[in-house]
Amino acid sequence: MDTIKIGVAGLGRLGLIHAHNIAGMKGVELTAVSNLDNTVNQQTKEKYDISYTYTAYEDMIQNEELDAVCIVTPSGFHPDHIYKALRKNLHVFCEKPIGLDINEVRNMIPVIEQSNKVFHLGFMRRYDADYMYAKDMIDRGDIGEISIIRSYGLDPIEGLDSFVKYAAKNTSGGIFSDMSIHDIDIIRWYTGSEIKQVWAMGNNKAAPSLSELNEVDIGTATMKLENGAIAFVAAGRTANHGYHVETEVIGTEGMLRIAATPDKNKVTVFDNNGVIRPTSQNFAERFRESYVKEIEEFVRCIRNNDKPEVNAWDGLRSTEVAAACQTSLEEERLVEIQYER
Amino acid sequence: MDTIKIGVAGLGRLGLIHAHNIAGMKGVELTAVSNLDNTVNQQTKEKYDISYTYTAYEDMIQNEELDAVCIVTPSGFHPDHIYKALRKNLHVFCEKPIGLDINEVRNMIPVIEQSNKVFHLGFMRRYDADYMYAKDMIDRGDIGEISIIRSYGLDPIEGLDSFVKYAAKNTSGGIFSDMSIHDIDIIRWYTGSEIKQVWAMGNNKAAPSLSELNEVDIGTATMKLENGAIAFVAAGRTANHGYHVETEVIGTEGMLRIAATPDKNKVTVFDNNGVIRPTSQNFAERFRESYVKEIEEFVRCIRNNDKPEVNAWDGLRSTEVAAACQTSLEEERLVEIQYER
Amino acid sequence: MDTIKIGVAGLGRLGLIHAHNIAGMKGVELTAVSNLDNTVNQQTKEKYDISYTYTAYEDMIQNEELDAVCIVTPSGFHPDHIYKALRKNLHVFCEKPIGLDINEVRNMIPVIEQSNKVFHLGFMRRYDADYMYAKDMIDRGDIGEISIIRSYGLDPIEGLDSFVKYAAKNTSGGIFSDMSIHDIDIIRWYTGSEIKQVWAMGNNKAAPSLSELNEVDIGTATMKLENGAIAFVAAGRTANHGYHVETEVIGTEGMLRIAATPDKNKVTVFDNNGVIRPTSQNFAERFRESYVKEIEEFVRCIRNNDKPEVNAWDGLRSTEVAAACQTSLEEERLVEIQYER
Amino acid sequence: MDTIKIGVAGLGRLGLIHAHNIAGMKGVELTAVSNLDNTVNQQTKEKYDISYTYTAYEDMIQNEELDAVCIVTPSGFHPDHIYKALRKNLHVFCEKPIGLDINEVRNMIPVIEQSNKVFHLGFMRRYDADYMYAKDMIDRGDIGEISIIRSYGLDPIEGLDSFVKYAAKNTSGGIFSDMSIHDIDIIRWYTGSEIKQVWAMGNNKAAPSLSELNEVDIGTATMKLENGAIAFVAAGRTANHGYHVETEVIGTEGMLRIAATPDKNKVTVFDNNGVIRPTSQNFAERFRESYVKEIEEFVRCIRNNDKPEVNAWDGLRSTEVAAACQTSLEEERLVEIQYER
Repeated sequence: MDTIKIGVAGLGRLGLIHAHNIAGMKGVELTAVSNLDNTVNQQTKEKYDISYTYTAYEDMIQNEELDAVCIVTPSGFHPDHIYKALRKNLHVFCEKPIGLDINEVRNMIPVIEQSNKVFHLGFMRRYDADYMYAKDMIDRGDIGEISIIRSYGLDPIEGLDSFVKYAAKNTSGGIFSDMSIHDIDIIRWYTGSEIKQVWAMGNNKAAPSLSELNEVDIGTATMKLENGAIAFVAAGRTANHGYHVETEVIGTEGMLRIAATPDKNKVTVFDNNGVIRPTSQNFAERFRESYVKEIEEFVRCIRNNDKPEVNAWDGLRSTEVAAACQTSLEEERLVEIQYER
Repeated sequence: MDTIKIGVAGLGRLGLIHAHNIAGMKGVELTAVSNLDNTVNQQTKEKYDISYTYTAYEDMIQNEELDAVCIVTPSGFHPDHIYKALRKNLHVFCEKPIGLDINEVRNMIPVIEQSNKVFHLGFMRRYDADYMYAKDMIDRGDIGEISIIRSYGLDPIEGLDSFVKYAAKNTSGGIFSDMSIHDIDIIRWYTGSEIKQVWAMGNNKAAPSLSELNEVDIGTATMKLENGAIAFVAAGRTANHGYHVETEVIGTEGMLRIAATPDKNKVTVFDNNGVIRPTSQNFAERFRESYVKEIEEFVRCIRNNDKPEVNAWDGLRSTEVAAACQTSLEEERLVEIQYER
Repeated sequence: MDTIKIGVAGLGRLGLIHAHNIAGMKGVELTAVSNLDNTVNQQTKEKYDISYTYTAYEDMIQNEELDAVCIVTPSGFHPDHIYKALRKNLHVFCEKPIGLDINEVRNMIPVIEQSNKVFHLGFMRRYDADYMYAKDMIDRGDIGEISIIRSYGLDPIEGLDSFVKYAAKNTSGGIFSDMSIHDIDIIRWYTGSEIKQVWAMGNNKAAPSLSELNEVDIGTATMKLENGAIAFVAAGRTANHGYHVETEVIGTEGMLRIAATPDKNKVTVFDNNGVIRPTSQNFAERFRESYVKEIEEFVRCIRNNDKPEVNAWDGLRSTEVAAACQTSLEEERLVEIQYER
Repeated sequence: MDTIKIGVAGLGRLGLIHAHNIAGMKGVELTAVSNLDNTVNQQTKEKYDISYTYTAYEDMIQNEELDAVCIVTPSGFHPDHIYKALRKNLHVFCEKPIGLDINEVRNMIPVIEQSNKVFHLGFMRRYDADYMYAKDMIDRGDIGEISIIRSYGLDPIEGLDSFVKYAAKNTSGGIFSDMSIHDIDIIRWYTGSEIKQVWAMGNNKAAPSLSELNEVDIGTATMKLENGAIAFVAAGRTANHGYHVETEVIGTEGMLRIAATPDKNKVTVFDNNGVIRPTSQNFAERFRESYVKEIEEFVRCIRNNDKPEVNAWDGLRSTEVAAACQTSLEEERLVEIQYER
């Protein structure tokens, strides 16, 4: 089959990762990028020998050479960008979430479903070898039926400043929409059940300045699922020790933990601090391979006319849960989630 | 000073541990035991060369030689046994909880406070070297201000049958009163703050038969504290891997975990199952030293006319929280705790 | 620059890995393979869409399209295959060792050095992120001066049968040449010093049948280096727990361990065996990325007319040490190594 | 039975530990201490309410009240002190080694064997729960037949100054006699076989000043056992990370490690250094319980007229091996050990 030509929209940190991965794939071409800041465009063009650069997304998708776009723009733009790409008959890989506003996300579902293009939502943890290994154990029944899932996403404190700058200009959608949405997806994926009640809390003891942005530096959500399982989720922006993504599954016949400590590698250091395991400081390092695998899967689906496992409904459901958590946090009460089916 | 003479009431599994520890202490004599089953009394008498055995608690406390009693009878008897011992002018070491009924516990407070005898409540985790090490770190500010505490108590599945037999005859008070009360005490001890809201859930996927006893095999409680900290507690009766007591404290400047895995010892085994850390199967092994240290502290208080750090208010507060969790579990709602001060 | 066309010689387990990696690289083409068994050739041709297959190495290197060969034939053929490829003006990537016979390896040095082609020896551990991280720590002086290095290579028992079959037909060169050569290279790389004395031992307690093949199932070598550092190496073929490659470096100001347990991934399982870390069962999984990176480096050197860090002298020196270990094992004595410079 | 009255000879760091443990045992009295420095004597007398203190060992053993002595004097005095105690009909607990000079140790054997008193040699690792757990696994055949034992004793650098002061006045007997003797005992205990060949090396990269004292700061010994097993031992005096005593046993069907990291407790700290396990800094903490248990066993043997498992031959054999290691280190050669049986 011919080379698949992809344009990447948005060259922030994650956008550059996707650009790098696409550029390195055999049988795939990083044909175009669109990004507001033209300096970054030119650097990227030079680095990966890209044919076209744009400062407007709308211009990029006019390029008739393109087969697909990879949308890594701020979350609030996602619905519009997805809509326009599908209308231009482009396959779409979109970073999570589909959108920040639930109604907008709901409205995207028929648009996506009626299109015959590949739509792939970037829940990269589903492509992480460790999360997949645990999924296999669960599906085989190795740990029995799931009673409790605990899932943490703790960002390193090094990233706090850049988040504050970002949140001052864009709405993040709140800590649950921005961060816990990955944990929510894992809970749904592992249990095969929907979340029906949530109680969320949060505070700003580590970064009081976040209060002005209506954000919390650490948030938790406790959840009851339709099948009776219980979930506890925590998200934080001020971890001193690194980028700590951890999931625990307690089953009736065993339990498992994925990445109980955010090990950087297989090295253990013995020095005057004690016995130390160096930690990974960023998502790019921790999920490097997952980002490659999800783009490979996106390309495979395009070539084989397949549908990705993660679909628009997964995007909607996780956004609905994140929004309910945000409501619970703000209104300090237990929130019931009513799904329209 | 003279030898301190102690009588142990109740020779169940934990009663025998206390008897053993008291018998081995220099300057202390295990003078009497009281227990319904006289066969156990005679075995214990012989093993430790004890002077007196009784089948009724009330008879034992008539013994004028005794300085103190160690109450390890079923929880429902605690208030009555404490009351009678204090009236006989005996120092009292009592296993948690002070009682199952909150009002009974509340009524005990003035009785205990007006007595001039030592009253020591058996929250043994406070005497565990690892929990103490973490407490010191927290108090020194090593991890900043506490944002989240997570604390688990998972009993091994081997103990399920004996719990079912016990629960058929006695009320355990529910999983939070029976098990999580230790975690509740740790939360109060570490934060120095009171719990004001709880949402508890539970299920019986691993041991459906517990439903008939109105018990759950696994329960969780999410808590909001007066100082804004968040706590998540889990208790279970069917852990396949051992006796797993674990506490995590997430602070604004670091986090720590106590006993993240229930290691039995310092041995690591490499065989065809992978790399294995053997686990401890019972509380007696995990907290062996703590049980010794708490009795030593009890004896020290008697000798020095001191007051133990853990007092009757700690007993009341933790029972109030456990009861609120039970209410939340049964009524499926968020529960506010109103403390009378 | 044009696409670089590579032929892979030998499609055993490792040969197939190299073929797969080469086939997946952008800007590189897996143009040909040579292998005795034509069935494997045809499967590989189909899988990777390869233009040419050969049953004789000599035929493959006649193919004028080729820029380079990747030699993964049995070790005894390496000198001949390197020689012929260089004479045909092909860049050479060769799996360790350069050869089994020291004189043959010595004779290759001028041939390789006088050629202007890239010669890259497959010490893949040097391209492992964990080994590189430790190398950086050592070079920065984080652990002071090196006193002791301990390095293990333990193969899983699952591979024993296939080794026995291989060793019955080919000479492996002995356990030190076949396995410890990687550890010897690491010792030289980390210390920057040469090994001058060795005492090797071995036994066949786990696989007595190896005695007939003049092999041991486990072997150790203790070494004294020119700079006074001490090394201890162990190699085994019957590890029940997995593929265990581990290195420890004790320095004057700290120590470090690489892969102290052969973790398969970041999952920890808690079940009735205790707390288990699943282990990696094979070198292909453990060093998957290293095999990619070393071929990338080989290609980079070809494109940039660079020399790989690992050169023919590294191949000679490590073979000399492995041979001295074998002599020590057979003659049961301390062996001095005399290097010709 | 009557109270057993013990005198402790030598109130250095370890002597004070033994004194403390003896003072705390029920049924045992710390009746006397002898120590050169009378200030320490008076402090100890006051702390434990001891009846007699002496500045000369010879005076203490004249005390007719004593049943037993615990000898913790410098190693060079051990033979003389053991001899005199036995002649005064006292049971003897003696810290390792029996003596520094092999002939002196050999001459003690008949003296000890012909006495009918309990003689207990202080190899406390044999009373460590972790070492005992591993011994049980080995004896049950869980890991098959032993191929390799690796055993480390690394002292924390904090102790270096006090060692230098000690070694300036007393001969330590060399690092193998002083430190590795514990590892040698473990090797003999676990394998049930004798060591027949050793090659020892050492260097002073971390503490060059030790050269003047004819000591090394780190030493290794590789050993061949009569049953074909291989052992590798390392001892060091400058570990930056703590008191690291670790043993590994590689068997034909599995392997195990005891204390692969010198964990202080069950706490894991996550802070800006990474994930840290605090380490134990001293032998007193690591082997606290073992020191209690070995004295309990000594007392049990006295009461029951039993013989301790560790006898004078164990003392002789381990000293012979340590001496051979020292010879190997000094003469830079492989040393054969000839045992007289």
